[in-house]
Amino acid sequence: MGSVVASMSMSLDGFVASPNDEVDHVFAWYNAGQARVERENRDFTPESAEVFRPGALGSLVCGRRLFELTNAWGGRHPMGAHVFIVTHSVPSGWPREDTPFTFVTDGVAGAVQQAKDLAGDRDIAIATPTITQQCLDLGLVDMIAVDLVPVLLGEGIPFFARLAKAPVKLGTPTVIEAKGVTHLRYPVGH
Amino acid sequence: MGSVVASMSMSLDGFVASPNDEVDHVFAWYNAGQARVERENRDFTPESAEVFRPGALGSLVCGRRLFELTNAWGGRHPMGAHVFIVTHSVPSGWPREDTPFTFVTDGVAGAVQQAKDLAGDRDIAIATPTITQQCLDLGLVDMIAVDLVPVLLGEGIPFFARLAKAPVKLGTPTVIEAKGVTHLRYPVGH
Repeated sequence: MGSVVASMSMSLDGFVASPNDEVDHVFAWYNAGQARVERENRDFTPESAEVFRPGALGSLVCGRRLFELTNAWGGRHPMGAHVFIVTHSVPSGWPREDTPFTFVTDGVAGAVQQAKDLAGDRDIAIATPTITQQCLDLGLVDMIAVDLVPVLLGEGIPFFARLAKAPVKLGTPTVIEAKGVTHLRYPVGH
Repeated sequence: MGSVVASMSMSLDGFVASPNDEVDHVFAWYNAGQARVERENRDFTPESAEVFRPGALGSLVCGRRLFELTNAWGGRHPMGAHVFIVTHSVPSGWPREDTPFTFVTDGVAGAVQQAKDLAGDRDIAIATPTITQQCLDLGLVDMIAVDLVPVLLGEGIPFFARLAKAPVKLGTPTVIEAKGVTHLRYPVGH
């Protein structure tokens, strides 16, 4: 069984984006090197490229907002994963045949279960703060993967907020140091 | 000349204490090992003990609140440093002779200058979030040292907030991994 990994790039002061959804700062490390990752149109440093293992990700759970902000990732997610989009209602014109998107209208628990069923032994990524927060409250997260970026944004959209069951104790992280980012992977106790 | 280092223990979600000033979680790593540090009544892990080099700290700048919360650290700061306390007014009964405390009523810039003059080649620590924020705005911080603790507090007192000049770009940190804490030391660009 794969792990459910809440995974985001975050500023040192805890934000995944500016208040108006700009991500230039927190994603700057995506182009900090020359290590091209298969299926990712980015030039990572070798250390950061290690973090992105093509094929390790089986599926991804996110919110409707990310789906719309990225314009459905141009038709497919860059990591090649099937995406489960948690939404109150299916957007107009969707679902479409032969696209790797499934819309889930019965909440995050159902979305994570569907994502696990599809992923098999591969990991399931959660890529939206609000869904991460709900999954933490439900005890559904196995790992928190933070790509910690050396910038203070001052304000923005927090990765972690509105936790119903805080404090959440995590394990000592594994650390991968890279240029412009520190990759931290924390086990979540249940 | 020593460096001005803003230094605090912080939860992964950016808090240095709970809303009611509890610090049990963010300071848990202080007693995670058996490495006793000279002049620090704590049992660090060997890795964390490396971070605390007795004598490296020349002086410390903090706010009135910390001075009162710690009850003047029982008479002297555990790191042996002279403390400059930024306050609007000198507390009743202070200053006292032969105590390592100086009260500064003309703002943070003056306090940092006095702390630098005393520290010589040793470092100057800033140990209060609000003063860190003011010093960042004034360009007075050389390093940000975060002892990143694997816990999500959900709410509390943020290390970084109300920055007038965000975003603040930092350099890639030096990293020391230890049990229950990741020591990150970021250079601040000016």
